[in-house]
Amino acid sequence: MRFVIIGGDAAGMSAASRAKRKDPDMEVIVLEQTQDVSYSACGMPYNIADPERDMDKLVVRKAEVFIDKNHINLLTGHRVDKIDRVSKKVAGKTSDQKDFSFDYDKLFIATGASPILPELSGFDLPQVMTLKSLEHGKTIKSYIQAKNVKKAVIIGMGYIAIEMSEAFRKRNIETVMVKPRSEFLPWMAKDLAEIVRKELTENDVKLHPGYAIQQIVSQEHGVSVECDNLSLEADMVLVAQGVNPCSDMAKDAGLELGISGSIVVDRHLKTSDNDIYAAGDCADAFHLVTGQRCYIPLALRANRAGWAVADNICGTRTSLQGVVGTSVFRAFSLEIARSGLNVEEALDAGFDPVENTVKTRSRAHGHPGSKPIYISMVGDRKTGRLLGCQMVGKEGVAHRINAIAVALHNHMTVADFSQTDLAYAPPFSPVWDPLLTAANQLVKKLG
Amino acid sequence: MRFVIIGGDAAGMSAASRAKRKDPDMEVIVLEQTQDVSYSACGMPYNIADPERDMDKLVVRKAEVFIDKNHINLLTGHRVDKIDRVSKKVAGKTSDQKDFSFDYDKLFIATGASPILPELSGFDLPQVMTLKSLEHGKTIKSYIQAKNVKKAVIIGMGYIAIEMSEAFRKRNIETVMVKPRSEFLPWMAKDLAEIVRKELTENDVKLHPGYAIQQIVSQEHGVSVECDNLSLEADMVLVAQGVNPCSDMAKDAGLELGISGSIVVDRHLKTSDNDIYAAGDCADAFHLVTGQRCYIPLALRANRAGWAVADNICGTRTSLQGVVGTSVFRAFSLEIARSGLNVEEALDAGFDPVENTVKTRSRAHGHPGSKPIYISMVGDRKTGRLLGCQMVGKEGVAHRINAIAVALHNHMTVADFSQTDLAYAPPFSPVWDPLLTAANQLVKKLG
Repeated sequence: MRFVIIGGDAAGMSAASRAKRKDPDMEVIVLEQTQDVSYSACGMPYNIADPERDMDKLVVRKAEVFIDKNHINLLTGHRVDKIDRVSKKVAGKTSDQKDFSFDYDKLFIATGASPILPELSGFDLPQVMTLKSLEHGKTIKSYIQAKNVKKAVIIGMGYIAIEMSEAFRKRNIETVMVKPRSEFLPWMAKDLAEIVRKELTENDVKLHPGYAIQQIVSQEHGVSVECDNLSLEADMVLVAQGVNPCSDMAKDAGLELGISGSIVVDRHLKTSDNDIYAAGDCADAFHLVTGQRCYIPLALRANRAGWAVADNICGTRTSLQGVVGTSVFRAFSLEIARSGLNVEEALDAGFDPVENTVKTRSRAHGHPGSKPIYISMVGDRKTGRLLGCQMVGKEGVAHRINAIAVALHNHMTVADFSQTDLAYAPPFSPVWDPLLTAANQLVKKLG
Repeated sequence: MRFVIIGGDAAGMSAASRAKRKDPDMEVIVLEQTQDVSYSACGMPYNIADPERDMDKLVVRKAEVFIDKNHINLLTGHRVDKIDRVSKKVAGKTSDQKDFSFDYDKLFIATGASPILPELSGFDLPQVMTLKSLEHGKTIKSYIQAKNVKKAVIIGMGYIAIEMSEAFRKRNIETVMVKPRSEFLPWMAKDLAEIVRKELTENDVKLHPGYAIQQIVSQEHGVSVECDNLSLEADMVLVAQGVNPCSDMAKDAGLELGISGSIVVDRHLKTSDNDIYAAGDCADAFHLVTGQRCYIPLALRANRAGWAVADNICGTRTSLQGVVGTSVFRAFSLEIARSGLNVEEALDAGFDPVENTVKTRSRAHGHPGSKPIYISMVGDRKTGRLLGCQMVGKEGVAHRINAIAVALHNHMTVADFSQTDLAYAPPFSPVWDPLLTAANQLVKKLG
């Protein structure tokens, strides 16, 4: 049996390794267009922040290890262009422009996602960059060094944009962020978004929300980002406006696409073709709160789905329950986390959402070093169900959100959540954990 | 209606305040034997550690506030000795030896717990102390100051003993711990207990487990704790061998007692007498993992149960689901947390426990500052159910345990828990959260 995998990132390599572990006789071919596999992509902003740290430190396992130790036929520099479902074949070109093709018994599309680039003039200039692959990361880092970058513009204000603003500031680069939409972190409760906005401002990141970008123009030194009534000069521009699933090939092959163009898969990660699986940032997932399909491209899901694909291909029927939309990121000294739905998403999913925001403390009364924690919690008026939660604070946020994630997996009501036996010790929380205070107050508001 | 509360600590004052808020016309009388109400008892070790910090900083609300603002008839220095259930009366003595008695319509016993003191010679010496009330805390702190304490012996090695060892070391007091049982932290998985033991040793705390104490003897300077083959000299001795529920009065009144002599209450916190409630460290609780009664005296439960008593007395029928045995404490730079059952407890409860211990990391691959996290997880072979979890590490432990607590409330299987969508960002965790790595491996072991 030959198992062909398109894409050697988180989902692809997880599946390849697991398949070989479960069935050493299986022929596993991975076709990866870049030279890099198995690296911590999410670690790139933190690595870029530190000129002393080698970017190869992010590589978890080198290609040779997969080839020599795991006996995976891993072919880097192999870009697949076409899937022929009738003859069960994939074809493409190597980085030195040679054609290749492979038959498959089972195919796994793990092509990931690519940064959204607007079709505007100047976005192809060499000073304009994106951050998705390790190559991107290395390009940005060496560009900062080589050109002695003093000023950067970031287009976008999502979590990668914010993480990169921190990286730039740590390297003492003047940092300006701009985006068309006027709300800062629109998915976040307003009070909480304001805390994050302040943190960025206090760290000398200039924010220009509400400016549609018209073009990027080359200047004598660097470029300028031209918006309505605003012109921002910079040595380099990072475009971080989110990603699109790399699903064109799947579409051309006639596979079903869904939300945001992601490849539709069932709970076994199977596409509309019985012999083709898809997972990672190119595929969709079930959302356990809405019960509907969603597109939330994150690393844990990619790794987990890669394993599940391998299990299914190796005959251990495995289904994934789905995601609840948990994420966390850091903005300078702030931890920002969410899980589940915000009010808008809850309305879209047909709930009757009630939101409540509390400000509480990270440590017990009288314990030194306590920091504010802001929590916005959403429940459903009809059923009392917990729908989602967002948190911002300087400590005690990143791991606390996991309690919410587990509650959402279990469709808990806010009232039941408010009864949970959470941990207390003065250095770590008040007697009533911030999440319990949030839940207690939301229970009252739900009536 | 007159609502009488015996004991003005967490449970008692929570109930008093809530009852007055819900029903301002209710006459609420609180009889507290000490002079202090509403303080962060758990904060005392951290306060004692710092000579600059005033111990009154731990007081959340002064007695006068409850009296003047909440109109609670709060009587400090009132020690209740007797409950007369037939005439519905409590009686006792004030601190200046005057008799008092009060009729009640509803009575709430919130007498708490008291430190276990062995009936051995020398435990009544002035150098021998315990830590439970704010008075105790103040006594210890001023004793350290006044007598310039250089050497302390702690009898016991539980979490208060360990927190106090940290406090003593911070004040540069030579610290020796001794206890009869030979296992250090016997409730903890051996590998994890060893990490904690090392942390104490590295912080110059000397440990002598396995020594039965015979007596404490007065010396020219200080005292000596005499054991078999061991004599430990000290300026002061702290006895921290756990607590017993203060339930003698309830017993004398004919109320039903249960585990460790705690007062038996139903899910509404009602005792075997229809007009008498009990909660806090003097009462038992249902354990949601075993389905059986347990005695786990902790602060969150006391506060929560106080509220529930008030709700029930005010006509809002409220029941508490129970506890899952979550706790956390700090030992120098270590966070130590648990929730649910260990192997021994699981066996006692009729499960077929399987335990697995993993060592993983607190941050992503390649992210600087990562620390080891040790997790021991227990599941039931028959049902696959998650039964408990213990964690030790220098970061990322204290709040992460809450995810386990919520899972235990929901009777999740280890396999279902391993599918949860936990948060990931490089500064806060590996892609696979340590809890997921622990669950993934335990799933395999469960077969």
